[in-house]
Amino acid sequence: MPTTDGAATSEPRWLDAGERAAWLSLAGVITLLPGALDAQLQRDAGLSHFEYMVLAMLSERPDRTARMSELAALANGSLSRLSHVARRLEDQGYLVREACADDRRATNAVLTDAGWDKVVATAPGHVAAVRRLVFDALGPEQAEQLRHIGGRILDRVDPGGSCPT
Amino acid sequence: MPTTDGAATSEPRWLDAGERAAWLSLAGVITLLPGALDAQLQRDAGLSHFEYMVLAMLSERPDRTARMSELAALANGSLSRLSHVARRLEDQGYLVREACADDRRATNAVLTDAGWDKVVATAPGHVAAVRRLVFDALGPEQAEQLRHIGGRILDRVDPGGSCPT
Repeated sequence: MPTTDGAATSEPRWLDAGERAAWLSLAGVITLLPGALDAQLQRDAGLSHFEYMVLAMLSERPDRTARMSELAALANGSLSRLSHVARRLEDQGYLVREACADDRRATNAVLTDAGWDKVVATAPGHVAAVRRLVFDALGPEQAEQLRHIGGRILDRVDPGGSCPT
Repeated sequence: MPTTDGAATSEPRWLDAGERAAWLSLAGVITLLPGALDAQLQRDAGLSHFEYMVLAMLSERPDRTARMSELAALANGSLSRLSHVARRLEDQGYLVREACADDRRATNAVLTDAGWDKVVATAPGHVAAVRRLVFDALGPEQAEQLRHIGGRILDRVDPGGSCPT
């Protein structure tokens, strides 16, 4: 590692011991938790976590409809990632894409009845996994802390609240 | 969604409003932060975040050497994922794999001088990204909370502290 040589302004601000421990635990979570969530959903429903998020976010919208750009932001993906996944979900009959009536340049995604049924059937197993992997390990105060910490990090990672393409 | 019908034992334990908000923020972080870390490292060093973790963890070991199984746990990856990545890093001259002197059935990974130089050259840009995306957004108390919360989730996701293959 580079040594401090008095040129303090150019010296990187290395993590202190507490920050380093916090970083290693967060790095572990972001490396391993996605795979654990995907594993349960793939095994029990044949869906990735991102695919489930797309369907679940649509299921909560009025008329089960959202613009593709909004849906990408809700599911934390880029528009190009969503377009790819929407094609797959459309092939399976869970959603359809159609031109937006208010703005012909925009595309809406609409959850089908089969997509709704898929969310209803998949949600209990998914929420059980989220409880087992996350909330069963945390008290209510830690859940509240996690909400604030996650929100602050998200503001940095995705400042506009909608992902870059 | 299924309705409560008195058979309370079979009803899923849905997330309450606070848990749901915490979950959406964590789901955003685990979906977006890995890509943001990869983007900086790929652009500036031609490495994925997992590849960087492998080299950085080795750089901190005595003799810059670790058993492959230990290294997989340190970098939060399965042994099969590590084996794949180690081959690539070996091709680039950053590490070598050799039989362990104490246990001929085990394999060690050893950081080369070129691998050490790569870590030294890459660390400042990576730590700047970690500060910008995570720690600049958090006070010291939140960093401490994150350490505990992350540790508790990791205990659930990876109970033995070493990943399944």
